[in-house]
Amino acid sequence: MATVREKLLHEAQPGKLALARAKVTVVGVGQVGMACAFSILQSGVADDVTLIDVMKDKLQGEVLDLQHGSLFLKTPKIRAAKDYSETADSKLCIITAGVRQREGESRLDLVQRNVEVFKQIVPPLAQYSPDAILLVVSNPVDILTYVAWKLSGFPQERVLGSGTNLDSARFRFLMGERLGIHPSSVHGHIIGEHGDSSVAVWSGANVAGVSLLALNPELETKQDSEGWAKVHQDVVNSAYEVIRLKGYTSWAIGLSVSGLAQSILKNLRSVHPVSTLVKGMHGIDQEVFLSVPSVLGWCGVCGVLNQPLKEMETQQLLQSAKTLWDIQSNLAL
Amino acid sequence: MATVREKLLHEAQPGKLALARAKVTVVGVGQVGMACAFSILQSGVADDVTLIDVMKDKLQGEVLDLQHGSLFLKTPKIRAAKDYSETADSKLCIITAGVRQREGESRLDLVQRNVEVFKQIVPPLAQYSPDAILLVVSNPVDILTYVAWKLSGFPQERVLGSGTNLDSARFRFLMGERLGIHPSSVHGHIIGEHGDSSVAVWSGANVAGVSLLALNPELETKQDSEGWAKVHQDVVNSAYEVIRLKGYTSWAIGLSVSGLAQSILKNLRSVHPVSTLVKGMHGIDQEVFLSVPSVLGWCGVCGVLNQPLKEMETQQLLQSAKTLWDIQSNLAL
Amino acid sequence: MATVREKLLHEAQPGKLALARAKVTVVGVGQVGMACAFSILQSGVADDVTLIDVMKDKLQGEVLDLQHGSLFLKTPKIRAAKDYSETADSKLCIITAGVRQREGESRLDLVQRNVEVFKQIVPPLAQYSPDAILLVVSNPVDILTYVAWKLSGFPQERVLGSGTNLDSARFRFLMGERLGIHPSSVHGHIIGEHGDSSVAVWSGANVAGVSLLALNPELETKQDSEGWAKVHQDVVNSAYEVIRLKGYTSWAIGLSVSGLAQSILKNLRSVHPVSTLVKGMHGIDQEVFLSVPSVLGWCGVCGVLNQPLKEMETQQLLQSAKTLWDIQSNLAL
Amino acid sequence: MATVREKLLHEAQPGKLALARAKVTVVGVGQVGMACAFSILQSGVADDVTLIDVMKDKLQGEVLDLQHGSLFLKTPKIRAAKDYSETADSKLCIITAGVRQREGESRLDLVQRNVEVFKQIVPPLAQYSPDAILLVVSNPVDILTYVAWKLSGFPQERVLGSGTNLDSARFRFLMGERLGIHPSSVHGHIIGEHGDSSVAVWSGANVAGVSLLALNPELETKQDSEGWAKVHQDVVNSAYEVIRLKGYTSWAIGLSVSGLAQSILKNLRSVHPVSTLVKGMHGIDQEVFLSVPSVLGWCGVCGVLNQPLKEMETQQLLQSAKTLWDIQSNLAL
Repeated sequence: MATVREKLLHEAQPGKLALARAKVTVVGVGQVGMACAFSILQSGVADDVTLIDVMKDKLQGEVLDLQHGSLFLKTPKIRAAKDYSETADSKLCIITAGVRQREGESRLDLVQRNVEVFKQIVPPLAQYSPDAILLVVSNPVDILTYVAWKLSGFPQERVLGSGTNLDSARFRFLMGERLGIHPSSVHGHIIGEHGDSSVAVWSGANVAGVSLLALNPELETKQDSEGWAKVHQDVVNSAYEVIRLKGYTSWAIGLSVSGLAQSILKNLRSVHPVSTLVKGMHGIDQEVFLSVPSVLGWCGVCGVLNQPLKEMETQQLLQSAKTLWDIQSNLAL
Repeated sequence: MATVREKLLHEAQPGKLALARAKVTVVGVGQVGMACAFSILQSGVADDVTLIDVMKDKLQGEVLDLQHGSLFLKTPKIRAAKDYSETADSKLCIITAGVRQREGESRLDLVQRNVEVFKQIVPPLAQYSPDAILLVVSNPVDILTYVAWKLSGFPQERVLGSGTNLDSARFRFLMGERLGIHPSSVHGHIIGEHGDSSVAVWSGANVAGVSLLALNPELETKQDSEGWAKVHQDVVNSAYEVIRLKGYTSWAIGLSVSGLAQSILKNLRSVHPVSTLVKGMHGIDQEVFLSVPSVLGWCGVCGVLNQPLKEMETQQLLQSAKTLWDIQSNLAL
Repeated sequence: MATVREKLLHEAQPGKLALARAKVTVVGVGQVGMACAFSILQSGVADDVTLIDVMKDKLQGEVLDLQHGSLFLKTPKIRAAKDYSETADSKLCIITAGVRQREGESRLDLVQRNVEVFKQIVPPLAQYSPDAILLVVSNPVDILTYVAWKLSGFPQERVLGSGTNLDSARFRFLMGERLGIHPSSVHGHIIGEHGDSSVAVWSGANVAGVSLLALNPELETKQDSEGWAKVHQDVVNSAYEVIRLKGYTSWAIGLSVSGLAQSILKNLRSVHPVSTLVKGMHGIDQEVFLSVPSVLGWCGVCGVLNQPLKEMETQQLLQSAKTLWDIQSNLAL
Repeated sequence: MATVREKLLHEAQPGKLALARAKVTVVGVGQVGMACAFSILQSGVADDVTLIDVMKDKLQGEVLDLQHGSLFLKTPKIRAAKDYSETADSKLCIITAGVRQREGESRLDLVQRNVEVFKQIVPPLAQYSPDAILLVVSNPVDILTYVAWKLSGFPQERVLGSGTNLDSARFRFLMGERLGIHPSSVHGHIIGEHGDSSVAVWSGANVAGVSLLALNPELETKQDSEGWAKVHQDVVNSAYEVIRLKGYTSWAIGLSVSGLAQSILKNLRSVHPVSTLVKGMHGIDQEVFLSVPSVLGWCGVCGVLNQPLKEMETQQLLQSAKTLWDIQSNLAL
């Protein structure tokens, strides 16, 4: 007997099945992974959002919850992958998985444990989506982007880290608050290592091309009576502060990653500070990933900007590069 | 000495301060409240999103996290209200706060505890935003919408509950999965009491006006070999299933409430099944709130549809009305 | 000496060039073609919008004008194709080109002249984008969709006409105006031949599953004191009325086609009344294209609904099929 | 006997009617006015779009065409105003009406004829929407913004002209094309008089804060072998070129105005170069309107940036101010 579907529809029998054109896989369904997935779903940029995690119940629950919102979304396929074969043909893979620091654990030990996690994730992702862009969000992001690059065997432009894209968004928000101007019109970049050692490039901070530094040359110093240097300090403290207050960060990193996804999936070639292989730039000679303003598109990092830096800014980058390399060279990959 | 802002900007001195035109207050920053707030922010429908909660740290952390995403949003004001005076002039107030059931607690006791919570919330909301629409999301939603109505003193059309709007979205998603059709083209309403006693109005289930019941008259019975009746059962079980798997529901209710917010704030007059005062409809003579298809806009519930029901469907509504009233009449308001 | 670009950017050298993933070609830059292109650009669904026309100056001017708006759009590639090779790898080709009726010209002569136009357009489109979906908007749309199908050699599901999708949108708007409800919540389909002979399927007209015909069984007759039959008449007259007043129609057809493009390009599988090959349905035995509710996605017309019709409605379809076939069988293809 | 609407709906009887919260009136339904209206409708930022024009048939036809697209839009009210009373309570009024230059007509005569047109438009707009923002798009925009300011009696911050906002968008697009970067990441402002005398502020042109002028100090001179100065020349020629090719400009100005509308209606406080009263800035002592980077929001022009200019740039502004004032002082207002 015919089913309701058979009675309702004459279905076409197309000859070959189309591949997804804008499939995104999100690895890890913790708070960060879910905020990324949800932001991307609401942006409508993907036609397939596939989630994967080792916590099967949590994964299943999160995907069910997203699917129940399908009526309000324009992404026809939302699914929980049973294994990596279901992530096949992704255009973009976002890695948010990772373990947290244990009490008394050294940073190197933490990284090594995350390397072990990445060994379970990156090779099968790369195997099933050999042309994908890998976007690493897990922390410490700069090192783990290097790890993902090594484990994937991908060309350097196809592996990047969310890096200081969020730090820069916070920087622009905080400057905008002081000036009474929407952050989209307040420009400024945080580059380098994501976290405490990040570098605020004050020389480029501007509104409509008007340099803030030119208005107040003491802006970046401690002499400045308005305390603008505190803006960068507040950016650095942001994550700690949010974690102290609510236990984790999620919404802003989700929106920030969704913006990167949009630029990559639609080949917009817009500029974002993301973690990319910087060997050969600013005098860095190690194979490390640090955030610099980059042009994003279908090639991943399609180009990196030659940003003139002050001596002190360059020194900070070189110091970060050394720190990262010291850790990386001790990792068992 | 002039500040950077003073040097940068000649500021206008407008004579009077404009009130927010599309201010939304969300009460409660738990998983549901935050998913509602985030969905509304991404939709861009509000120009002010104010959050309030008794958990001050959590509130502050969530708002900071949202503010850090401001660059990617079109809502210029996102804030944590220190007290209800900062919720003033909201156009829409969404209440997601409430306590959870304790082990061994009776449903009536649970409701009474939530009544006490609402006594702290609703009167100040109503005082500072006397023209607002109140949208209740907290469970049990039908009773708490009644409670909010009573505590606010608002006319009935300005107090509604999210009710079966989400149940209906789940219903349409699940039917769509079976038919291979996007839920936006699969129509069907779940009405009545949100939860176990909800009513699936199979007579109206259709795709492009083609009645599914006409294709298979056994659709709603247990005789149906395809098991369509299970679709409604799955809707009823959805919340339990998601809670079992991930601990709570969030994304779908957030998207669902964001859709209601959009219809209300933009005066779209689109139709959604929401919990509204149904005294006088379908033979119900108690002051209870149940979900029926309603036209939403600036007046809140601008109209309610006269939906022809089968005898059994009406009986279910009457039964729900009686159950709700039994509880309500024992509440200390 | 290095250019500014070379100084500014380290560019990646990706191994292979990616094909456009959501490239749309619009043939014809008249008022209809431009409204389609502009609506699609504002929707952000395409990553490449290519326009082509024999009027080279007009084409160049329209594309320049669109490109100047790039800052406000999310479509990185907007271009005027010098020849059809630049339309290569389109996922969707929208044909809006065609000649207008001359005074005293018979309908058959008009169609034949448009066949000659299509002979210049369809074969090269099909050659350069052999996997594309062809969406015909030019009038008389049902015949020209047949012509495009024949000239392309494409399987039937990959050639469709915009058909009564716009008529149905007008129908829903006009019913919504009478009911005080947004058209997105007022359902009703116009099917059959686009234009004077279109069929309003009153049996399916509903709000939230509540049948309008059940509320007023005289709805579709001339006895109805409210004059609902006039709603369909107004739909039929809409195009004439708009053309009389402003000289052509553009905005609504643009939005309507943009909706179809979205469903096709994102594989949404939502249902729209579009012109598709109906041989074998409703007793039609000619190779004609008429509008019926169809599921749209990557396969083009992925499915067609079995919509139960009244005897009189079926007769109208059969009559339209005969009329169309009489013309088609006299065409020199 | 009850109508279908009465049978279908129990309607609420709200006590007082709400005013539109985001009503936009567009004066003039030529190509520019319609592109503005359509862009604003697709952006979803308004809840009421009212059009008005002296060409009643054209007005009626354009509005019908837009209304027929209502299903695809989120603006519930689209209407043709019979007279200015129907524009009442607009938050934003966009004036695109005006006459074109006759052969042999002097610029002053043309302006005077447009003053006469504005005398019919501005006083009734100001009367019915005394708190609105007036946004002038008609050309010559700087003079006509002054005229609208004088005729309205509004405070200066509530009258602005679209000015060089579009010129700047073209500038950013053309620079982006040369650099292979999306215009949203390429910054640069054209200021001053809209048209031939506009000023490109090369000192502020940058990507991610990296100054283009620093990369190539000859950028703005004729010595530059890459011909960057031609970019500004191309901006100046853009309108002429588009008009030569297609007869008028429409899409880019529509998108550009829609962006301004969004910033104003949502109180975004983002920065755009628009025509505002510049008396007292850059040494200008006449009551003239010229484009400078401005913060837009509910107050209209909420602030104007103090942009440091080179001597030659200032001279150009002073020259423009003098030219404009010479014309303005001869107008019969």
